[in-house]
Amino acid sequence: MIKAGIIGATGYAGNELVRILLHHPEVEIVKMTAHSYVGKTFDEVYENYRDINNMVLDEMNMEKLAEECDVIFMALPHGVTAKVVDKNILSKTKIIDFGADFRIKNADTYETWYGVKHEGRELLKEAVYGLCEVNRDIIKGKNLIANPGCYTTCSILSLRPLVAEGLIDTSTIIVDAKSGVTGAGRGLTLANMFDECNESVKAYKIASHRHTPEIEEQLGYAAEKDIKLTFTPHLIPMNRGILATCYATLTKKVSYEDIKDIYEKYYKNEYFVRLTKKGIFPETRWVKGSNFIDIGFGIDERTNRVIVVGAIDNLVKGASGQAVQNMNILFGLDEKTGLTLTPIFPA
Amino acid sequence: MIKAGIIGATGYAGNELVRILLHHPEVEIVKMTAHSYVGKTFDEVYENYRDINNMVLDEMNMEKLAEECDVIFMALPHGVTAKVVDKNILSKTKIIDFGADFRIKNADTYETWYGVKHEGRELLKEAVYGLCEVNRDIIKGKNLIANPGCYTTCSILSLRPLVAEGLIDTSTIIVDAKSGVTGAGRGLTLANMFDECNESVKAYKIASHRHTPEIEEQLGYAAEKDIKLTFTPHLIPMNRGILATCYATLTKKVSYEDIKDIYEKYYKNEYFVRLTKKGIFPETRWVKGSNFIDIGFGIDERTNRVIVVGAIDNLVKGASGQAVQNMNILFGLDEKTGLTLTPIFPA
Amino acid sequence: MIKAGIIGATGYAGNELVRILLHHPEVEIVKMTAHSYVGKTFDEVYENYRDINNMVLDEMNMEKLAEECDVIFMALPHGVTAKVVDKNILSKTKIIDFGADFRIKNADTYETWYGVKHEGRELLKEAVYGLCEVNRDIIKGKNLIANPGCYTTCSILSLRPLVAEGLIDTSTIIVDAKSGVTGAGRGLTLANMFDECNESVKAYKIASHRHTPEIEEQLGYAAEKDIKLTFTPHLIPMNRGILATCYATLTKKVSYEDIKDIYEKYYKNEYFVRLTKKGIFPETRWVKGSNFIDIGFGIDERTNRVIVVGAIDNLVKGASGQAVQNMNILFGLDEKTGLTLTPIFPA
Amino acid sequence: MIKAGIIGATGYAGNELVRILLHHPEVEIVKMTAHSYVGKTFDEVYENYRDINNMVLDEMNMEKLAEECDVIFMALPHGVTAKVVDKNILSKTKIIDFGADFRIKNADTYETWYGVKHEGRELLKEAVYGLCEVNRDIIKGKNLIANPGCYTTCSILSLRPLVAEGLIDTSTIIVDAKSGVTGAGRGLTLANMFDECNESVKAYKIASHRHTPEIEEQLGYAAEKDIKLTFTPHLIPMNRGILATCYATLTKKVSYEDIKDIYEKYYKNEYFVRLTKKGIFPETRWVKGSNFIDIGFGIDERTNRVIVVGAIDNLVKGASGQAVQNMNILFGLDEKTGLTLTPIFPA
Repeated sequence: MIKAGIIGATGYAGNELVRILLHHPEVEIVKMTAHSYVGKTFDEVYENYRDINNMVLDEMNMEKLAEECDVIFMALPHGVTAKVVDKNILSKTKIIDFGADFRIKNADTYETWYGVKHEGRELLKEAVYGLCEVNRDIIKGKNLIANPGCYTTCSILSLRPLVAEGLIDTSTIIVDAKSGVTGAGRGLTLANMFDECNESVKAYKIASHRHTPEIEEQLGYAAEKDIKLTFTPHLIPMNRGILATCYATLTKKVSYEDIKDIYEKYYKNEYFVRLTKKGIFPETRWVKGSNFIDIGFGIDERTNRVIVVGAIDNLVKGASGQAVQNMNILFGLDEKTGLTLTPIFPA
Repeated sequence: MIKAGIIGATGYAGNELVRILLHHPEVEIVKMTAHSYVGKTFDEVYENYRDINNMVLDEMNMEKLAEECDVIFMALPHGVTAKVVDKNILSKTKIIDFGADFRIKNADTYETWYGVKHEGRELLKEAVYGLCEVNRDIIKGKNLIANPGCYTTCSILSLRPLVAEGLIDTSTIIVDAKSGVTGAGRGLTLANMFDECNESVKAYKIASHRHTPEIEEQLGYAAEKDIKLTFTPHLIPMNRGILATCYATLTKKVSYEDIKDIYEKYYKNEYFVRLTKKGIFPETRWVKGSNFIDIGFGIDERTNRVIVVGAIDNLVKGASGQAVQNMNILFGLDEKTGLTLTPIFPA
Repeated sequence: MIKAGIIGATGYAGNELVRILLHHPEVEIVKMTAHSYVGKTFDEVYENYRDINNMVLDEMNMEKLAEECDVIFMALPHGVTAKVVDKNILSKTKIIDFGADFRIKNADTYETWYGVKHEGRELLKEAVYGLCEVNRDIIKGKNLIANPGCYTTCSILSLRPLVAEGLIDTSTIIVDAKSGVTGAGRGLTLANMFDECNESVKAYKIASHRHTPEIEEQLGYAAEKDIKLTFTPHLIPMNRGILATCYATLTKKVSYEDIKDIYEKYYKNEYFVRLTKKGIFPETRWVKGSNFIDIGFGIDERTNRVIVVGAIDNLVKGASGQAVQNMNILFGLDEKTGLTLTPIFPA
Repeated sequence: MIKAGIIGATGYAGNELVRILLHHPEVEIVKMTAHSYVGKTFDEVYENYRDINNMVLDEMNMEKLAEECDVIFMALPHGVTAKVVDKNILSKTKIIDFGADFRIKNADTYETWYGVKHEGRELLKEAVYGLCEVNRDIIKGKNLIANPGCYTTCSILSLRPLVAEGLIDTSTIIVDAKSGVTGAGRGLTLANMFDECNESVKAYKIASHRHTPEIEEQLGYAAEKDIKLTFTPHLIPMNRGILATCYATLTKKVSYEDIKDIYEKYYKNEYFVRLTKKGIFPETRWVKGSNFIDIGFGIDERTNRVIVVGAIDNLVKGASGQAVQNMNILFGLDEKTGLTLTPIFPA
C-alpha cells in the first residue's frame, strides 16, 4: 500500500482527494493536515465523512511527513510548497503539488503573474508539469509533480492537438472559460456568499488571470513557438464544473472529419478523454464527479474559425483526480486505478 | 456474476441504478429497456455514460428477461409491475420493484390512495417490503421485493425506534418532508421546468400524498397498532436529497441521552444509518451520492415534543441504492457490496 | 416629503429598503449609514444602484439624524437600537426598528432567548409591534415601531384567524418554516457560502430559534391566553422567500368553507393578504419582490388537522416592505403607497 | 391612456410585459390573448397576479384587436406576425413584434437562418429595427417595430461604439454569450427541465444561432460594411440575465481612457446604458428586473485585444422593457416612462 499524506485536506480539493483515495485499492491515507482545524477530526469539518473518516487533523510537519509518507499531496494555494519542500524532502518522498509554484518553468514569468518572489527556483528543474496525457513519460521517475490548474487542464487538452498539428493560427486563440464556485476555494469572501453569486454570471480577472501563462507555456511546447492568447474566466452559479469555449482561426480549409481525425490521433487511446459525436457538445453535467474531460468542436465556416468546447469537473480532472492519476504514474500503477468514476447525474 | 436486467433504465432512478451496478463487483447488466428510447444506446440518452455504457435500449419483454436475468429491477412508476409480473415470472427470476404496487399489504388501501385497480392482488402475499434495515430477515428467500418509496424510507427509519419503544404518542406524528426535483421524475411537466421551480419552495399534495399510507402501515407494525399521521411533501430547488422533519409528542419525560440510547439500540450496527452527534442535524449535502441515511434529533422541552430529522439521497437510499441493498440480501452477499459510496461534496 | 434616514443601509434589508423608498412618491432619503463602508458611495457597495444612488455612506450619529430625519429606519440586528435610542431621540423623530429589541413586551423573555441584557426596558411601553394588519390602529401616533421578524410575520398572519376564533387547539401548533439564504444576512460565515448551502436543505436552531417567543406572544394575544408552540426553521438554496407550513389540530369539525369564511372575515379587505383558492397553495415565487403574503390551507380529515401555508418575500413583507407600510401608517398615508409592487417572475 | 393589447401574454416575455405595463402611468391593457389558455384568467396561469390581474385570456383576433388597441405587442416566436399583420392592420394600430420576422432587412438572409419562407416581405420596408438607443429617430412615426432579440440587444450595444469608430478589426469579432433559462421560453422541453440544466453549463447552436445575422446586420450599419462574426450562446443555471463577453482586435494602440471616451460619446446621455468604472465589469445580478444594460471593458495589451462585457435582463431590456421603450417613443412619451425600475438584488 502506498502511504499518502494530505496537506491542506480541508479545502474542497483536499476533501475530494480523500473521497477518491478512500476508494483507491492501493493507497492508505496516513496523515492529513489542516492549519485552521488542527485537533479536529476530518468528519467534524466535512460531515459527509461521518462514520467514514475521523482522522485527527494535524499541523504540517514536512520532515515528519516525508519520513512517514510515500507521497504527499500538497493541496494548498501557490507559494507554500516552494517554501517547505527542498531536495532533502524530495529524497525521501514524492510531492504532488496542487499549487502553481512549479508549473511555470520560467520563474520570472511566475513572479510577474503571481506578484510574489519564487522561493524554490533551484527545484524548478526537478519538477515536471503533471498533465498526464501529455507528460506521462517524463512524470515517471520524478519526485516533484506540478499538478496543473483547473482552467489550464481543460484549455490545454481542448486545444493541444490543433496547435500541435499547426491547424490553427495561434495568435488568434481566445479561451472563454466558465467555472463553478468551488473553483474559488473555501475561503470566506463576500463574492462567494450564496446570495452574491447565485442567479448571476460574471467575468473576472479579465486579461490578468494567472492561468494564462500556464496555458501559453504548454501550448507553446506543442506549437514549438511562443504563444500569447486571451483567457477570460467566468463564475457560474453551480458547485462544480468547468466549460472552456475555445476560439481560433483555421490555417487552412479543413472538414469536420479532418479535425476529428486529429483529435482521435491524439486521444483515441486516452481513457480520460472522451470525444463527443458530431453536433454534440460537452456539458459539465456529464462529467461531474469523474476524471473525464469531454471535448467537442464545431467549424464556423463563415468566419473560418474552429470552436472547441472542453468540459471537466474542476475538483477531479482539474485537481484531485489528476493528482491521483499522477500518483498512479509515479508508482507504476495502471493510470485508471481508483479513477474509473462514473459521472453522477443529476447531481 | 449476477445477471441483472433493468426495466425503465432511462428514468433518474434507472440512471442511478446503472451507475451503482457498474461499480458492483458481482453484477453484470445484461439488458436494459426503455419504452421511449428503444433502439437508442444508453449513452445517447445519458451522456454521462459516454464511452462507458452504450448498450442498446430494448422493449420490455418479461418472458425473455426472466429467462436471461437472475434479477430484474423494475424502475417504473406504480401500476406496471402488477400487470406484467406473475408466478411464472417469479419462478424464474427475482423482481425488485421500484413502484408502489406491492408496498401496501391491503389492496383496498392501495386502490383508495392510487385511484386505480390493483392488478396483482394474488401476488401481494409473495411480496416483501424491502426496507432492508427492518426486513432483511424476511427478504432473504423472497422473489418479489417492493422497494420502498423515497419519502417513506426517510420517514420510517427516522421515526421507527421511537414508535417501537412507545416513546411517542403516535396520534401526534407529523412529517414535514422536503425533496429535490429528481423526486418528481423525468417526465415533462411545466411545474418541473427550471424557471418554474428554481428560486421557489412549495408544499404539494397536502393531506393526500400516496406515501402517507405506506409510512402509516410500516410504523403501525412497529407500534403494533394502526397509525394515522400527517405527511406534507415540499419541493426544493435542488437536484437530489430528501430531508424529513418529524414531529411527535413524547409519552414521558426523557433526556437526550435516553433517546440517543434507543437510536443506538436499533442502529448502532447498521452501516447505512449514521446518527449525528448532539446539536448536529442532518443536511442533505452530507449524504449526496451515497446510500446513507443520517438521523439526528432534538427535544423541545417547552412543548414536550421530539423533532427528528432524517436525510437521504432520494435516488440512492430512496431508490436505487436500497434496491441494490435488497439485491445483495437476496443473493446472500454482504449488504454493503458495491454500496460503500462516499458522499460527494460539494456537488 | 418625508425625510428618511437609513441606518445599516448595506445589509440586504437596507438595500431592499432603498429600492422601495426610491419608488415611494412621498419620501426622500436624506442619510444612509453603514459602519463597515463609511466614505464609500452606496453604488460602490451595491452596483445595482449604479447611476441611481451614489450617496456617501456615513457613520451613525443618532443626535444628528434625529434632527434631520422625520423617520429613521434602523436596519440592524438586535441589541443596537435599545442602546442608541432614548426618549430624547423619540421626541424628535420616529424610529422603525428592524431588530428584535422592542418586539417582545417582556424584557425577561427577551433576555432569556437572546442571551443579552435588554438595554432599553424603559422604552418598551413606548414601542408598538408593527404587524400592520393587526396593529395599525395603535401604530398611529407612536414613535417607536418594532418591525416584526420575517418568520414571525409569515407565521402569525397565517395562523392568527384560526387562533382568534378558537378553531385550533393552540397546544398543538407546529410551524415548519423554510427560508431563502438572504434571511441569514450578509455577514461572512462559512455556512452561507455558495457551495455550502447550494444543493442542500437543512433544519437549524431546532427548538431554540429566537422568533419562537415572538410568534407565541402575538398569537397569545389573539387567543387571550399563553401559547407554547414548536417552531423549526430551515435553510433553502434560494435567495428570497419564506414558506411557513403550519400544523394544528382543529377543535371541532369544520368544513373547508367554514375556515375560508374565517380567513375572509379577517383578510378580505387587506390588500397585502391574498388568499389562495381551494386546492391551490402558496409558493414563494408568486410573492417575490412584493409586499404580499399569500395564505392557503387544507384540512387533513383523517387526523383532524388543518395545514396552513403562508408565503412571503422575507426582504419585503418580512422586513423592508412592512417597514414602509408602518411608515405609511405613521404618517397618515395610504398604507399601499409605494408598495403596489407586482411580484416578479421568474426571478 | 394608450390602449394596449398583448398577444402571447403567457410566455415569460408576455408575463414580464404585463408587470411593466401595470406600473406604466399612461397605459391600459385592454386585451390579452394566449392560444393555449383561452378562457382562463391571467392569474390562473401566473399566480403572481393573484388579486392583481384576472383578465380572461382570449384567442388572437387581429381585426378586432386593431380596432380596440392603440398598440399591440406580439409576444410570439418568429413566423406569426408576418402572417397575421398587413397594411390594413397597420393603418389602424401600431405593432411591436417580439419575433424575428421584421428584424432582418434581407428576407433571403432571414429564410436561410430561420429555415422558413418569409410571409411578409412586402412589409419589410415599413418595419424599423427597434433598438431604441440607435434608431429612436426613425422609430417615431412608424407603425411596425421589430423589437430586437435578447442576445442581439446586449451584443450590439456592447460593441457598436467601437465598430462605428473603426477601433476594432470587425473580422476578429467573437461574442461569447451566456443566458439564463428564461431565454429559452416556457415551452416544455427535456433540456429545460430543472434537473437537466441545474448545476451545469453548456454551449449550444455553435456557429448556427439565429441571432448571428441580426448582430451582423446592425453592426454592419455602424461599420458601413458587411461583417461576419462568431457568436456562441451558452445556457446558465439561473432564471434571468444575459452576459455577452465580446472579443476583438484593436486597429490601433489606444489607452483605456481613449476607449472610455468613445463609450461616453455614445452613451453618456443614455439613461438605460450604464458604463462601469475601470476595473469593474458588469454582472447580471446588478441589472435584474431593470431595463439597464451595463457595459464595461478591459484591454488585453499582450494580445492587442479589447474585451467588452455587456449585461442585461433578457426579459426586460432584452424583450419587454425595450418593447415598452419603443412604445414610449412611438407615442411621444418620455422614453423612461414606466421603466425607471431599480434592479432587484439579491433576487
